[in-house]
Amino acid sequence: MKVLIIGGGGLVGQKLARKLAERGTLRGETIDTMVLADIVDPQPVEAGFTVETAACDIADPASLAATIDDKTDVIYLLAAIVSAQAEEDLDIGLKVNMMGTLNVLQRCRELGTKPVLVFTSSVAVNGGEVEQPYNDQTLLNPQTSYGAQKAIGELLVNDFSRRGLVDGRGFRLPTISVRPGKPNRAASGFMSSIFREPLQGETANCPVDEDFNHYYLSPRKCVENLIKGAEIPEEKLGKNRCMMMPGRVWTIRQMIDAMTAVVGPETAERITWNKQPELDAILAGWRMDIRADKAEALGLEADASFEDNIRYFLEDDIAK
Amino acid sequence: MKVLIIGGGGLVGQKLARKLAERGTLRGETIDTMVLADIVDPQPVEAGFTVETAACDIADPASLAATIDDKTDVIYLLAAIVSAQAEEDLDIGLKVNMMGTLNVLQRCRELGTKPVLVFTSSVAVNGGEVEQPYNDQTLLNPQTSYGAQKAIGELLVNDFSRRGLVDGRGFRLPTISVRPGKPNRAASGFMSSIFREPLQGETANCPVDEDFNHYYLSPRKCVENLIKGAEIPEEKLGKNRCMMMPGRVWTIRQMIDAMTAVVGPETAERITWNKQPELDAILAGWRMDIRADKAEALGLEADASFEDNIRYFLEDDIAK
Repeated sequence: MKVLIIGGGGLVGQKLARKLAERGTLRGETIDTMVLADIVDPQPVEAGFTVETAACDIADPASLAATIDDKTDVIYLLAAIVSAQAEEDLDIGLKVNMMGTLNVLQRCRELGTKPVLVFTSSVAVNGGEVEQPYNDQTLLNPQTSYGAQKAIGELLVNDFSRRGLVDGRGFRLPTISVRPGKPNRAASGFMSSIFREPLQGETANCPVDEDFNHYYLSPRKCVENLIKGAEIPEEKLGKNRCMMMPGRVWTIRQMIDAMTAVVGPETAERITWNKQPELDAILAGWRMDIRADKAEALGLEADASFEDNIRYFLEDDIAK
Repeated sequence: MKVLIIGGGGLVGQKLARKLAERGTLRGETIDTMVLADIVDPQPVEAGFTVETAACDIADPASLAATIDDKTDVIYLLAAIVSAQAEEDLDIGLKVNMMGTLNVLQRCRELGTKPVLVFTSSVAVNGGEVEQPYNDQTLLNPQTSYGAQKAIGELLVNDFSRRGLVDGRGFRLPTISVRPGKPNRAASGFMSSIFREPLQGETANCPVDEDFNHYYLSPRKCVENLIKGAEIPEEKLGKNRCMMMPGRVWTIRQMIDAMTAVVGPETAERITWNKQPELDAILAGWRMDIRADKAEALGLEADASFEDNIRYFLEDDIAK
């Protein structure tokens, strides 16, 4: 079993690689080779099997031809131009998120080996004038270029799979919280930083009201779901192979209460509550009430509670 | 007012051109120039204003640059690789239906003039595991490459419009019946030929049961809706600018009864009823119960009855 992770240098890619190294198997087979590919040669992980790294640009078919060979059984396509950059630069988003996904699919078609392709879509495909809650039957009406490009990726993955050219399956990632690392200026940054920074002894600002609701998943459960996602038998995927990955809808208040239940009340006192009017319009579109019935029926799971998200951060990621 | 019809050589393009010639105005302005463009130089129409024709390949950005200039106020993008060909040849469908649509949008962006773009999507974006009736809020889960490429076009039209690069609006055309012309081998061919051929004194075969239901519109109403579609004020389009064009759900029996009501019972006796098992799987996916509430609220209209479809064919199209 040869596994390729495109986007193997990112947060989810690295965690997925470490988890696969720990398991040693995928789809009931022993992994003998894992390739971590990213736009810059990613950090390898320790494993009991061969781990290779590669620089790969999915916007370049020749680069993909060098990276995806006919021995590759499972491909994770995690690489993407993220939301803020895709909004700033339409062309780079189209080139990587849309054409890059098509290039991966065309490479699989060219090989004729019908590999399993796990594509990560995003909660950002939702939005617009569609009524909530969003479920497996609701129109994708994205309101960012990133969301539009991911929705296009879903249509391509479905069509290439329907034609038997690849065994694709796509999962729309919830907002991942608690993300490790440094604070960033992304509009969604506060959704992790209001927990991460206080848990690490720092302050952080929350720019929305306590009743702001959104759809979340921990990094640990995300990785477990990506592994399960590769293992779903093809015949169970139905006619729409792209679906919401299970997460849970929490309000900011519920999440803070969960943090308090795990670590006591002092931590939440490090959160400040200053509105950022320039973010209001963006964040209004991010209230999201979502149902992931199909993925749940296929065995994927949300966190049991946000207390778990907090515990996983403390166990897996807190800066020491 | 300069109007460009890309796909101006096709059935709908020619009828639209003739209707615009007859009206002389669009969006409240006098038309001074109309350009009919198609992959081969289309037939011009008679009009009281300048009519130009052009050969244009939307898959080629240079060809589009020569065809769409900064004087163009309204663009109709009707050109496409049709369903059967896009299913046979994935690459040509991607090149024309997906990249061609993107090329038109990029050309509009390059000009910076924000023209009105009327994009024709298709009933074929519907299908898959989505429950019927399909409405303005239901997931697009197309089960043909043509449908997937049209759904991608919708996402691109919405995103370029959201960014203010074009004033796009997309309409999913119902199955057009009664189409004039010769019988063809398309799986959907019978949906026109069982009326057209008998009305012209010939026989035709119906390969489905009397209770087969689908979603239809006459060519005349389609053209009227495309004109109204260009005239909808941008601010009324909302966050999803692509919608089903109103049609009506009829069973084969209802349509035949309508024909009999208009022309008497002898005509329907020219229909034969032989199943074509090779079509069963395709046609099972074409039973379609659809609601077009949004487009109706914006003033677009279905035929009042299938008797009207028959009358329009007799008035506009019957072979003399």
